[in-house]
Amino acid sequence: MVAALKVGVAGLGTVGAALIAQVARQREALAARCGRGIEIVAVCARSRAKDREIDLNSMKWFADPVALARDGDIDVFVELIGGAGDPAKAAVEAALASGKSVVTANKALLAKHGVKLAALAEKHRVALNFEAAVGGAIPIVKTLREGLAGNSFERIYGILNGTCNYILTRMEQDKMPFAECLKEAQRFGYAEADPTFDIEGHDTAQKLAILASLAFGTKVDQSAIYVEGISSITPADLAAADELGYRVKLLGVAVKTPKGIEQRVHPTMVRKDSAIAQVMGVTNAVTIDAEGINPLTLVGPGAGGTATASAVLSDIGDVARGVRTAPFGLPTARLTAVRKAPMQRHEGGYYIRLLARDKPGTAATIAKRLAQQEISLESIVQRHPKDGAGAARKNGSVPVILITYATSEDAVRKALAAVGRDSVISGRPQVIRIEKN
Amino acid sequence: MVAALKVGVAGLGTVGAALIAQVARQREALAARCGRGIEIVAVCARSRAKDREIDLNSMKWFADPVALARDGDIDVFVELIGGAGDPAKAAVEAALASGKSVVTANKALLAKHGVKLAALAEKHRVALNFEAAVGGAIPIVKTLREGLAGNSFERIYGILNGTCNYILTRMEQDKMPFAECLKEAQRFGYAEADPTFDIEGHDTAQKLAILASLAFGTKVDQSAIYVEGISSITPADLAAADELGYRVKLLGVAVKTPKGIEQRVHPTMVRKDSAIAQVMGVTNAVTIDAEGINPLTLVGPGAGGTATASAVLSDIGDVARGVRTAPFGLPTARLTAVRKAPMQRHEGGYYIRLLARDKPGTAATIAKRLAQQEISLESIVQRHPKDGAGAARKNGSVPVILITYATSEDAVRKALAAVGRDSVISGRPQVIRIEKN
Repeated sequence: MVAALKVGVAGLGTVGAALIAQVARQREALAARCGRGIEIVAVCARSRAKDREIDLNSMKWFADPVALARDGDIDVFVELIGGAGDPAKAAVEAALASGKSVVTANKALLAKHGVKLAALAEKHRVALNFEAAVGGAIPIVKTLREGLAGNSFERIYGILNGTCNYILTRMEQDKMPFAECLKEAQRFGYAEADPTFDIEGHDTAQKLAILASLAFGTKVDQSAIYVEGISSITPADLAAADELGYRVKLLGVAVKTPKGIEQRVHPTMVRKDSAIAQVMGVTNAVTIDAEGINPLTLVGPGAGGTATASAVLSDIGDVARGVRTAPFGLPTARLTAVRKAPMQRHEGGYYIRLLARDKPGTAATIAKRLAQQEISLESIVQRHPKDGAGAARKNGSVPVILITYATSEDAVRKALAAVGRDSVISGRPQVIRIEKN
Repeated sequence: MVAALKVGVAGLGTVGAALIAQVARQREALAARCGRGIEIVAVCARSRAKDREIDLNSMKWFADPVALARDGDIDVFVELIGGAGDPAKAAVEAALASGKSVVTANKALLAKHGVKLAALAEKHRVALNFEAAVGGAIPIVKTLREGLAGNSFERIYGILNGTCNYILTRMEQDKMPFAECLKEAQRFGYAEADPTFDIEGHDTAQKLAILASLAFGTKVDQSAIYVEGISSITPADLAAADELGYRVKLLGVAVKTPKGIEQRVHPTMVRKDSAIAQVMGVTNAVTIDAEGINPLTLVGPGAGGTATASAVLSDIGDVARGVRTAPFGLPTARLTAVRKAPMQRHEGGYYIRLLARDKPGTAATIAKRLAQQEISLESIVQRHPKDGAGAARKNGSVPVILITYATSEDAVRKALAAVGRDSVISGRPQVIRIEKN
């Protein structure tokens, strides 16, 4: 048997601790499955004193992750520090440059510096694996990189942020407003004290940039993604979606269009009977449309110490078995630059919720403005709230829900601007894109 | 760049033809993704004259698959002949013995001779890949073999037969009886002229044997599986299931129990809000419960030329990239023998549908017999059919649906036998196991 693979782990939070525990528990099985043992020989974290309920005695301790990354005693450097900057970046670069394979769960680092790091890995002929960076335990990186290596992709989309999906689920099931659900998510530890990164879609965008690169051979580039969060969604939207056979999910979508790869993150209406619409709570899911595969959906835990550690361990196992795949599927020289999708040119169906002034001619005016932009309607729902039932009615307005057939975002924006100028609606119209699935 | 990988394909049905077309279409991308070209250099089929709408001119033609398997010009032998016996078996053995990697979609061959073939591959240090044998395009073999290599599995279960799932879906949605749905499935080409293999669960069992081996390190052994098909299921069962919050699916289940690995195929009640319950029509799905991953579900097309070819091509790509994993995850010497699960000892909840004689004391008798076996009931539904509404009522019988808490199969069988002897029911009771999920 080959000598054991020696692993250095930087970052001993929940994932790092779970990884060390799992390697200890599965020592025998791992050796059998990978053809050689896997040993964590060195670790690095900010505090040595902290009680992590794991035995670190047999491991060399480093205070500096870069020093660990360069240590001659390790074969693989596992980066669980997080963040797009140093010390994570410096440590990963140091490891790759000194000929060590790297396993990382760091989506921010990859979304920002992925191409450069991949090129470095290529140059030194080492692996750069990051299954844990997207979708936790869902083996989506492996599926795209290896499992569908011979396929031509049409589209990939997913629920990539558990916080947002938890909030949307609670809002839908319990008719609670956004702010209240967010507070609850924070209480349960599903949302950060500063939730902006999650709820405004940036976390999803980082993950989408990685998936898009794997599927379409684009250069990972978070700045090429149109991003819109979920804070404007109301229980009324979710109820209307339900009635029309849809659910609202925050999706990251990358899709091949005649104008190039369109990457976008926004609240999306998905058909209620689709696999992805069933995904509730903090669970993640990714759906792939490829040649002959319409669709393939992977659903699983997107976070959590053990789930994430399991993905990290799978990556380490690949290194142990001598597998080295181009980090983003293709040699970096073949990855293509991608421009930010101009959303005005996005084409699809739209859900539009308006508060229409309850007076003669309103419906005709709205209909005319849509017709002027050649927008056809699949359905219109207008219900006069029961007497005394709603503030809307008191203000002399009634909610109108429109579902359009495929049209362009530009047309929708222009039509709604005109309707606004006509003074037949109150407030801002709510617009949610419909994803065909 | 390394020389192209030379591939020989035996069997040119829909999958073989789709594979050849896909390799031609993706030539460039495959070479980039795998680090070397993939070329199909030789083929073999029964009829050379048949029009397959693919260009075979550049390929060497073989009439004998064994001769193709031994041909010095190929690096990989792709077996798409099917069947557990010769010529598929002889050809795969010949290829492995002459040091060629094998890619096969042949579940029957693997379910029967998998361990022997894996040992042969091991001996000659070549790959034996079979992603296409289970779940079509769903990358379940890769996920178990590599993606979760560091995990300890608790249970794996799936909808592995599209024909059965199509029939159950139609029965549920359109309240059609089994026989009629089967005929329709045959008309649409979803079911064979002789449907026994599919509807009696044998196809599912072959696939389950492979999954169980990958998850639990057991020796692939179809004969160790308890098998029960779907032909006894009625629309009344599906309606009752729906009312109680369940759906009926034909599942293959392999689960770790204190008494060993239990492998079984049977109609199963699954919670309607679970991912697997949403899988309708010919689609397949596999759910995995492992340490820290509860659950991971993969949903996708289980059959079809292009979908299956995509899995075959992924396997070929792994060979091109030099990846060689133990066929069943562990070295064959470490695979453990598994005994057939004695279903009497199976423990779980049960759905029982009885036609109870409509006379005083019936309910008391049934309740007593269940109590004698220490079976507790979660729910009882008994509705007197509306006057004149049912033949049941005319015969003086009313349907009673019982849902039990976890109990043993032995207890259920004994209680129902006693109820039968008491002459308080007509016909055979319907019993469907409930899978907790």
